Amino acid sequence: MIPTPYLLFLGDAPDKLAAKVAQGIKDWRPENAVGQLRLEGCQADLGLTDMTLEEAKAAGAKTLVIGVANRGGVISPVWKEVLIAAIEAGFDIASGLHNLLRNEADLVAASMAHGTNLHDVRVPGIDYPIANGVKRTGKRVLAVGTDCSVGKMYTGLAIDAEMQKRGMKSTFRATGQTGILITGQGCPLDAVIADFMAGAVEYISPDNDPDHWDVIEGQGSLFHVSYSGVTMALIHGGQPDAIILAHEPTRTHMRGLPDYDLPSLEALRDMCLPIARVANPACQVVGISVNTAALTEDEAKEYLAKVEAEMGLPAVDPYRDGAERLVDALEAM
Amino acid sequence: MIPTPYLLFLGDAPDKLAAKVAQGIKDWRPENAVGQLRLEGCQADLGLTDMTLEEAKAAGAKTLVIGVANRGGVISPVWKEVLIAAIEAGFDIASGLHNLLRNEADLVAASMAHGTNLHDVRVPGIDYPIANGVKRTGKRVLAVGTDCSVGKMYTGLAIDAEMQKRGMKSTFRATGQTGILITGQGCPLDAVIADFMAGAVEYISPDNDPDHWDVIEGQGSLFHVSYSGVTMALIHGGQPDAIILAHEPTRTHMRGLPDYDLPSLEALRDMCLPIARVANPACQVVGISVNTAALTEDEAKEYLAKVEAEMGLPAVDPYRDGAERLVDALEAM
Repeated sequence: MIPTPYLLFLGDAPDKLAAKVAQGIKDWRPENAVGQLRLEGCQADLGLTDMTLEEAKAAGAKTLVIGVANRGGVISPVWKEVLIAAIEAGFDIASGLHNLLRNEADLVAASMAHGTNLHDVRVPGIDYPIANGVKRTGKRVLAVGTDCSVGKMYTGLAIDAEMQKRGMKSTFRATGQTGILITGQGCPLDAVIADFMAGAVEYISPDNDPDHWDVIEGQGSLFHVSYSGVTMALIHGGQPDAIILAHEPTRTHMRGLPDYDLPSLEALRDMCLPIARVANPACQVVGISVNTAALTEDEAKEYLAKVEAEMGLPAVDPYRDGAERLVDALEAM
Repeated sequence: MIPTPYLLFLGDAPDKLAAKVAQGIKDWRPENAVGQLRLEGCQADLGLTDMTLEEAKAAGAKTLVIGVANRGGVISPVWKEVLIAAIEAGFDIASGLHNLLRNEADLVAASMAHGTNLHDVRVPGIDYPIANGVKRTGKRVLAVGTDCSVGKMYTGLAIDAEMQKRGMKSTFRATGQTGILITGQGCPLDAVIADFMAGAVEYISPDNDPDHWDVIEGQGSLFHVSYSGVTMALIHGGQPDAIILAHEPTRTHMRGLPDYDLPSLEALRDMCLPIARVANPACQVVGISVNTAALTEDEAKEYLAKVEAEMGLPAVDPYRDGAERLVDALEAM
C-alpha cells in the first residue's frame, strides 16, 4: 500500500495529457490529492494548490506521486533533484514509469538513508499464490472490453463512485498502474508471472461481506491476441457475478493490430459468458459501457439507443451520463 | 539451446517414476541420450549404458541433464559432488528443478571457472516481445485439453514423430520444462511475464516453409481457472491451423480443483474454436487424443469408438494406437 495523501508531481509536463495519472487521482480520489508540484515550463495544471515540499509536508502529504509521463525513458537531472529533496523531507515516492525508481542508485541510497520507501507500481510487490478457484463470499463485477483502452478503468471507477454515493459497500480493485496510483493499492497484472495471474486476482479480491461489491478493473480483451491471456485470468480469478461489456464504437481495428477487426458486442458476450461461467455459473452480462468521446452528443444518444435495443441491456457512456443505470442493474441482481 | 547429446543423471531416484524426465528424453530423442549416470541406491534404470563422466565425455556427451526429481526441494551434497565434477570435466548442466542451479554459489563458481553453462529451463532465458498477431507462414497444430496433465505433450511428441517418419517437415515446439529438456530448446511459458506470453509463443514458432508443421506443446486448459490464461496465450500466440482435443476420461474433477467438473469434449470444442478463430479464421478441430491409461484394452476401444461417433472426428490414444490417424487428419487439411 502507498501511504496517502499525496503531493502530485507534474514535473515539466508538456501538456495536460502527459499528466493524466495525476488527473485521474484528482478526479477519483480528490481526498488523496493535497496539492501539486510543478517545475518551470509545466503546461499542466490540475487546479490544485501549488505547494513546495515543505508546504505539502505541513499539509499532511506522505507520498510524492509522479503523476506525469517522462520523456525519453530517463529520469532527468531536474526531476532527480526534486525526488531526492522529497526523500530527504521524508516523503515516499510512487511511480508507474517504465524505468524503475529502484534502478536509480541515488534514489535508493537516499531512501535508505532517510527510511522512506520507493513504490514502483509496475512491479508486483507480492509473491502471489496459484489460484485455487474456491468460491469467495461477496459480489464482484468486471468490465470486459471489445478491445484494449476502451474505458474499462473509467467504467469501474464510475461504478464504484456511484455505489459509494448510494451508501452501498464497494471497493475498486486496481489491476494496472494508473488504477494502483489512484487508489494506493492493487496488482499490476500484466507484470505478474503467467502461472500466478489468476491467483493474483483472487488475492486482491478476497472474501467479503455478502452485500459488498468488488469492482475489479478490467485489462486487455479476449479478442486482443497480445493480451487475451491476462483478460482470461481476470475472468477466472475474479469469478465475477456480473460483467459489463465495454466498447469504443469508432475504432477501425484492434489497438496495435491493423489486421484484426473489432468483435461485435454480441460476439464478445457469447465468448465471454461461457468462459465466466466456468468459475461462476451464475455470472450474467448486465450492462454495456460505451466510450462515446469521439461522437457528438446526438450521435452518442442514437448509438446508445441502438445498442440498448439490440442487446436488451442498459447501454450508457458513464463519462457523459454517469454510471447510475449500470449500478441500477447491479443492484437489481 | 542446450548442447546435445546428453548424459542423463538419474541420481538416487527412489523409483522409475521419479526419473520420468530422463525417460522422456530416452523415448523421444534417443539420439540425445548417450548414457546414464546413477548413484548408489538408484531404483530407476533406462536400459542405457551406465557411464562415468569420463566415459560419457569420450562418447561425445556435452550436457549432464538432471533427469530426476529431487527430494525436499534441495540439491543434496551427494548430487553436488557429481554436478561439480561434471562441470570440472567440461559439461554444461541442465535442470528443470524448482530450486535453480544459478542460486547455488558453488555451482556458479565452478561453471564460471570452467567456462561451462548452467541451464535452468524453468526460467525464460529471453526477453520475449509483445505479440504482434501478424499471420505467419507454415502450419501449426496445438493440443488443447479438457484439463491439465491429460497427455498434451505426449500427443504432440507422437504427432511430430509420426510426421518425421512420413518424411513430412515438422518441429516440436516445447512450452514446458520437460519438453525443453527433451528437445533441447523451447520456452517455459508458465514462467513468462503476463504481457509477453503470446509473444513468447510467436517467438518459438516463427515463419516457416508452407508445408512445415510446428507441433506446439499445449499447457493448462481453458477450463482450468488457475492456468487458463496460459492456454489462451498459446491459442492466440500459436495461431493454430489445427487443434487436437486432449482428454482423460476417468478424472472426477479438474486437477487440484475439487469443486470443478471436467467439461465435455463438445463444450471444449465450442469454447475453443471461436477463440482460435480470432487469430486464425481457418482453424479447425481435427482429432481427439484420449489418455486411456486407466482403462482396460476393451474399455479403451469402446470409449474411443463412442467419442469418435459423438464428435465425428478420429479419436485415438496415441500411446496405445500411435498418432497415425491424427497425422492422417492433419495431412488431409
